[in-house]
Amino acid sequence: MSSSDIFISETIGTAVLILLGGGVCAAVTFKRSKAHEAGWVAISLGWGFAVLTGAYIAAKSGAHLNPAVTVGLAIQGGIEWSQVPVYFAGELLGAMIGAVCVWLAYYGQFQAHLTDPEVINPPRGDEGLVDQAEAPKAGPVLGVFSTGPEIRNAWQNLVTEIIATTVLILAILTQGLSDDGKGVGPIGALLTALVVVGIGLSLGGPTGYAINPVRDLGPRIVHALLPLPNKGGSDWGYAWIPVAGPLIGGAIAGGIYNVAFA
Amino acid sequence: MSSSDIFISETIGTAVLILLGGGVCAAVTFKRSKAHEAGWVAISLGWGFAVLTGAYIAAKSGAHLNPAVTVGLAIQGGIEWSQVPVYFAGELLGAMIGAVCVWLAYYGQFQAHLTDPEVINPPRGDEGLVDQAEAPKAGPVLGVFSTGPEIRNAWQNLVTEIIATTVLILAILTQGLSDDGKGVGPIGALLTALVVVGIGLSLGGPTGYAINPVRDLGPRIVHALLPLPNKGGSDWGYAWIPVAGPLIGGAIAGGIYNVAFA
Amino acid sequence: MSSSDIFISETIGTAVLILLGGGVCAAVTFKRSKAHEAGWVAISLGWGFAVLTGAYIAAKSGAHLNPAVTVGLAIQGGIEWSQVPVYFAGELLGAMIGAVCVWLAYYGQFQAHLTDPEVINPPRGDEGLVDQAEAPKAGPVLGVFSTGPEIRNAWQNLVTEIIATTVLILAILTQGLSDDGKGVGPIGALLTALVVVGIGLSLGGPTGYAINPVRDLGPRIVHALLPLPNKGGSDWGYAWIPVAGPLIGGAIAGGIYNVAFA
Amino acid sequence: MSSSDIFISETIGTAVLILLGGGVCAAVTFKRSKAHEAGWVAISLGWGFAVLTGAYIAAKSGAHLNPAVTVGLAIQGGIEWSQVPVYFAGELLGAMIGAVCVWLAYYGQFQAHLTDPEVINPPRGDEGLVDQAEAPKAGPVLGVFSTGPEIRNAWQNLVTEIIATTVLILAILTQGLSDDGKGVGPIGALLTALVVVGIGLSLGGPTGYAINPVRDLGPRIVHALLPLPNKGGSDWGYAWIPVAGPLIGGAIAGGIYNVAFA
Repeated sequence: MSSSDIFISETIGTAVLILLGGGVCAAVTFKRSKAHEAGWVAISLGWGFAVLTGAYIAAKSGAHLNPAVTVGLAIQGGIEWSQVPVYFAGELLGAMIGAVCVWLAYYGQFQAHLTDPEVINPPRGDEGLVDQAEAPKAGPVLGVFSTGPEIRNAWQNLVTEIIATTVLILAILTQGLSDDGKGVGPIGALLTALVVVGIGLSLGGPTGYAINPVRDLGPRIVHALLPLPNKGGSDWGYAWIPVAGPLIGGAIAGGIYNVAFA
Repeated sequence: MSSSDIFISETIGTAVLILLGGGVCAAVTFKRSKAHEAGWVAISLGWGFAVLTGAYIAAKSGAHLNPAVTVGLAIQGGIEWSQVPVYFAGELLGAMIGAVCVWLAYYGQFQAHLTDPEVINPPRGDEGLVDQAEAPKAGPVLGVFSTGPEIRNAWQNLVTEIIATTVLILAILTQGLSDDGKGVGPIGALLTALVVVGIGLSLGGPTGYAINPVRDLGPRIVHALLPLPNKGGSDWGYAWIPVAGPLIGGAIAGGIYNVAFA
Repeated sequence: MSSSDIFISETIGTAVLILLGGGVCAAVTFKRSKAHEAGWVAISLGWGFAVLTGAYIAAKSGAHLNPAVTVGLAIQGGIEWSQVPVYFAGELLGAMIGAVCVWLAYYGQFQAHLTDPEVINPPRGDEGLVDQAEAPKAGPVLGVFSTGPEIRNAWQNLVTEIIATTVLILAILTQGLSDDGKGVGPIGALLTALVVVGIGLSLGGPTGYAINPVRDLGPRIVHALLPLPNKGGSDWGYAWIPVAGPLIGGAIAGGIYNVAFA
Repeated sequence: MSSSDIFISETIGTAVLILLGGGVCAAVTFKRSKAHEAGWVAISLGWGFAVLTGAYIAAKSGAHLNPAVTVGLAIQGGIEWSQVPVYFAGELLGAMIGAVCVWLAYYGQFQAHLTDPEVINPPRGDEGLVDQAEAPKAGPVLGVFSTGPEIRNAWQNLVTEIIATTVLILAILTQGLSDDGKGVGPIGALLTALVVVGIGLSLGGPTGYAINPVRDLGPRIVHALLPLPNKGGSDWGYAWIPVAGPLIGGAIAGGIYNVAFA
């Protein structure tokens, strides 16, 4: 398969992943949305089926959609190391396109939220104050784009992302063991999606489970670039964790696979 | 396959789709329903499994159930353009039959709701007043039949419907890529259903995700025709958006497929 | 396959169906349960996966688990009419065994509930009074066993059960169309289970979706026989509707199949 | 397959099962988690997809992940009795590793919870007092590791665990009947996962559904060993029930299979 085919397929697939994944965050966050406050089950299912949809669409290139998958597969030997940069580039570009599409699909909601007096001048004495006193926390608008921790502690947050990503990549690398080596077919896409639902429900609590470097970095870049009034900062101090954690997790999963299952 | 077989299969399949889809809206909307206020996860799962059931039943004709699917497949080359009107006719008739069946299945709930004094003369000063001041909004009874936006803005609403439908049709058109060209088998129906769950969770917030022209138009016609007391208007001013948006989205998805994946 | 094999398989499968289905009603109903007030999504998923589990276990006999399925298949020609009584007998016995197992699994919860002063002497003036004034309604204990309508009207309730069952049986009868005639394999069991989730979400609101004569009758008999203090009546006046409605629906689905799809 | 391959595969698979299963309990329990109070549907889906992920990863060894599965399969004849201790050892070690990983992934949440003044000195007069007066109940921290009953009664709790596990193991043993004897492939893993979701929703109410001896014992040992301040007791008086109940249930299921289906 040519590099440009890989690039196009991964770009489109990752754009769909981030459009639907960021979309469910927007749907639950914004007050003028029919899914407002639909809860964590909605978030977890939304991201899982975002993976399903993106994986379906990008089946031609193996549907990595995630540099941690690419790294894990390269360590396992499933792809050539020379292809890695092509996957990375498509994944990052796709994530940025997807984040822009979230903004377009929820344009009115962004406008309404960012001009809401309660958002611009939040009332004092509310529960948000406790969090503010302790550490900067991703506000709702940044939360539509990127992840942020509930309790901000770099090493703890990194460990959580490493553990969660190791589980994801290990599940993907061992697909071939039960699937007669058929790789990511429709059943593989479905099971991976449900694994992602499970990781969201189980390990998303502390950091919001990036488990994918571009899922966090791409939309964060878009957040920084978009001309949104009152959008607040892009929390770049946290940005390295959801990039490094998943990459380390992907590498660990590749190592476990090679030692324990190969 | 003969045109009459296509017509019958699409009519029955779309009737089931709209019966179950409109049904979950009724189930969550009406006070005298066991699923009252079951929330957006219930709505999204309900519509997704409505697609699954309809797709299962209409497998013989490829289970389009949606003019946007028909348009996308025609552009892709999966069906003949001459078959398009047959599909359209079956889909629209089925959607109308399905909407009538929702009314029959929830007959008592419609009666109780439409004669409820609070519905007929809503108390003043409630939060509904704010919305009324701004723009007409689909009331609960019309909401059982057709979609309506949270924030009424024609171009924003159109863009949301285009984006959501493009994702749906792209996922359907790329099925063949991973499925050895087997088309919509049971696994394809399942994955498409879960894609619809995902689109509902992620992109349903602003407009209620018609993503299917007849899903909105068929029940709206039925709403206009049924002799329901106090039913309110059918909001025809909005009706073109959930027809045009999905058709444009279907065409865009067909174009993306032909350029990027064919 | 011998009649005794069919009988044993259907008995065990239906017992599991009703154990898990009645179980989720108990889980959500009783105060001293970890799933207390988990809501209608829990109920719908619980019954759907109850079907999955029962269908899995009774695969040998085709996993009808439901006289409406048996009737539909007999009309379609999938089974001999002479086998129908064997299926019916296994289904009804299984449903009764399953209901007893629910009581055993939730023994402590039944005890705690039935000796709770608030249950025995409910406070006056609460919202329950309005319902009482209008019509008898299944109390929580009977609701663990059998279905009851939100709005009691024989013809409306019957129509709802007929419509919901027609959808279910039609989906089962058309399985073969997309599944290369393979009948109820694991994928068929999964899709049928999700169709049941969908019917629960979409059409369960008015009557609690028996959609299966023995699902309602078997546990109702057990409710009448079990020596539970303060259990209240078994609402036999309603009992014919969830028997007749599903049988009529099964027959209609068989007819639609033979006319439209055969 | 060599004993060491079985041991490694079961250890890793069970570690993932308990990491994700314990993870969802932590996610829902702790206040500083994004999934706080996500409810019983989240718990049930989380454990189900935990099974899916573990089963996927441990496919090489048949993915028992549960001594009750091992016992049931040994009785059925699916594995040699001589292999049973190897499976047991891997399962128990894996469960302990998984519980440690939950602690690592939620390290900050454990810290915040265990130093929260309300947790250390709960206010008097709240609803918790009623439970305390009656019987010791697993506090939230132990609840992240192990199960505990809503109503403490040894024989009732044992019966509930036996019934729930019998259903699970029967579903696993009958997989081969519909699956052409293919054992636990990806579809089998998916269906088993959804059966576990169903058992959680339907039969998890009274005891929290251990249905797996090591799921309860492994994390309980880790709870006893971890140097957590204010962690409370490990409730060893209850510990035999979620070990004995599932083993008995597995044996019963093996017996039913041999009598009714073999």
